[in-house]
Amino acid sequence: MKKITVLGGGTGTFVVLSCLKKYPLDLGVIVTMMDSGGSTGRLRDQLGVLPPGDLRQCLVALSEAPILWRKLFLYRFESGDLAGHNFGNVFLSALEKVSKNYQEVIESASFVLKIKGQVIPVTFNKTNMCVKYKNGNVVKGEGNIDKNYQEKSKIVRATLEPQVEANPQALKRIFNSDYIIIGPGDIYTSIIPVLLVRGIKKALQESKAKIIYILNLMTKSGQTTGYKASDHLQDIVTYLGRTPNYIVANNGKIPVNILKWYLQHEENVVENDLTDKKIKIIIGDFIEKNGFTKTKSDVLFRSILRHDQKKLAEALVKIILC
Amino acid sequence: MKKITVLGGGTGTFVVLSCLKKYPLDLGVIVTMMDSGGSTGRLRDQLGVLPPGDLRQCLVALSEAPILWRKLFLYRFESGDLAGHNFGNVFLSALEKVSKNYQEVIESASFVLKIKGQVIPVTFNKTNMCVKYKNGNVVKGEGNIDKNYQEKSKIVRATLEPQVEANPQALKRIFNSDYIIIGPGDIYTSIIPVLLVRGIKKALQESKAKIIYILNLMTKSGQTTGYKASDHLQDIVTYLGRTPNYIVANNGKIPVNILKWYLQHEENVVENDLTDKKIKIIIGDFIEKNGFTKTKSDVLFRSILRHDQKKLAEALVKIILC
Repeated sequence: MKKITVLGGGTGTFVVLSCLKKYPLDLGVIVTMMDSGGSTGRLRDQLGVLPPGDLRQCLVALSEAPILWRKLFLYRFESGDLAGHNFGNVFLSALEKVSKNYQEVIESASFVLKIKGQVIPVTFNKTNMCVKYKNGNVVKGEGNIDKNYQEKSKIVRATLEPQVEANPQALKRIFNSDYIIIGPGDIYTSIIPVLLVRGIKKALQESKAKIIYILNLMTKSGQTTGYKASDHLQDIVTYLGRTPNYIVANNGKIPVNILKWYLQHEENVVENDLTDKKIKIIIGDFIEKNGFTKTKSDVLFRSILRHDQKKLAEALVKIILC
Repeated sequence: MKKITVLGGGTGTFVVLSCLKKYPLDLGVIVTMMDSGGSTGRLRDQLGVLPPGDLRQCLVALSEAPILWRKLFLYRFESGDLAGHNFGNVFLSALEKVSKNYQEVIESASFVLKIKGQVIPVTFNKTNMCVKYKNGNVVKGEGNIDKNYQEKSKIVRATLEPQVEANPQALKRIFNSDYIIIGPGDIYTSIIPVLLVRGIKKALQESKAKIIYILNLMTKSGQTTGYKASDHLQDIVTYLGRTPNYIVANNGKIPVNILKWYLQHEENVVENDLTDKKIKIIIGDFIEKNGFTKTKSDVLFRSILRHDQKKLAEALVKIILC
């Protein structure tokens, strides 16, 4: 069985894991542990726990438990002391408080959610993303980077503060994988945080795994304003330390009403200007036409456009199994 | 296998269930659903859920899941938005929000906690305990009755507001039981709330089950000030509609330091003045010598003296199996 490892967190990773779960693959995910916004950020600050949000999403994506359990883990409280908190985040936080170590947290959560595959936090250490813009501005914390969406300057440096060690299981999984999938996802808050952890870049450079990079559909204010495909690729290559073997890019048309919403937020379609002949570029219509509606208690700014699970799965499986 | 049903909620019921769990018995508990204090009261008010606290304690008592799960369900958050909330309560509340009905909540929680036996909420309707004192004072809500510990007057009437229907499973279980165990527990906040639900008293009167009443060790301020054993019995008989077949009463000595604590709170040892020859009275030393320490985030006023599980189990099993 082919060993496939997804790197990231957030909704993009959720889509990729959900779509690949149905295939006979040895699936795993190395999850970013740098979130500091929303419910996760509050739990992190108030309880001193590791950020549960990205982990919870990956666990639910790989869950084969009855639908009720998946609904429960995604449930967001709408009122009272718990308003805005996600039950899955609360669960992981309490579990961390009563467990011997974080590995036990992962094992217990994987058990109750009947996980297909392996969910691996990229690190067990506490750290924060930090970015510096060309205009000199420095923003620390993933939550603050998300809030800095009015920034027009380009990010010129990304670091972790403090620098942290990789979870050895993450390094082992990278070495032994056949394919590594990166993206879609906000590159400075979902992807690069994973690549910055000490040991990850080297493991990726030394691994014989082929790398598939799924390009974002839209630019992201505060992170990739004005970026074309080649700009995304350049940033990814910098932190990855090698060039992806495949890039999956969309050429499907985005519904007008959704496009309008993005343009109002000064976000644009990522133009495909890739010319590198060494990279196999898979182009297709990957648009999920129904869009995404968030609940009223969800205060985070999330993308309303997603990759279509079925179309994306077909493209990925074609690369992996052919 | 003998069918044993415990009525109540709170720490007394937790002790009885925990001690009987180890024996080959068909064990069940009919749980009070009237709590309105502490974490439970806040969840009830803020989320509109049924009170989870007593249910959670009964589920944990009957759980055969690994110790980690039981620790998790009893874990109380110590800081931040969730301070004072118990994880098990939060779990049941979120589960209620995503479930079709409360029976599904019970089934899912019983599954994850690997329950030995049956946990049955006495009702699925929302209601509150209401007591009237001899001096005319009326207090509504279990949480408020607990807070009214400075009241010296005697309770002369207890009602539910509104009156609610019994869960049919509770009635069926009462009819089919061999033994029904009542107490120990605060009689007006853990035991009588169950007996007041429409249908329960009649079912108890018509059931051929023998009734075992475990007398409290100490009086409770605001509920049973100055009560002797016969006063407890009289109140129980009023709401039960029949006389218990057995009474289990303590004659063991209470450690001086614990006794001092109770005397400071104007609570006293329950004196055994029972003379009714039709009731079999089992007297023994049932004192748990180690006492009970509560966590700093637990703001409720809880008893620090408990029945010893092993000693109580031996006495109960002797009645049941002989």
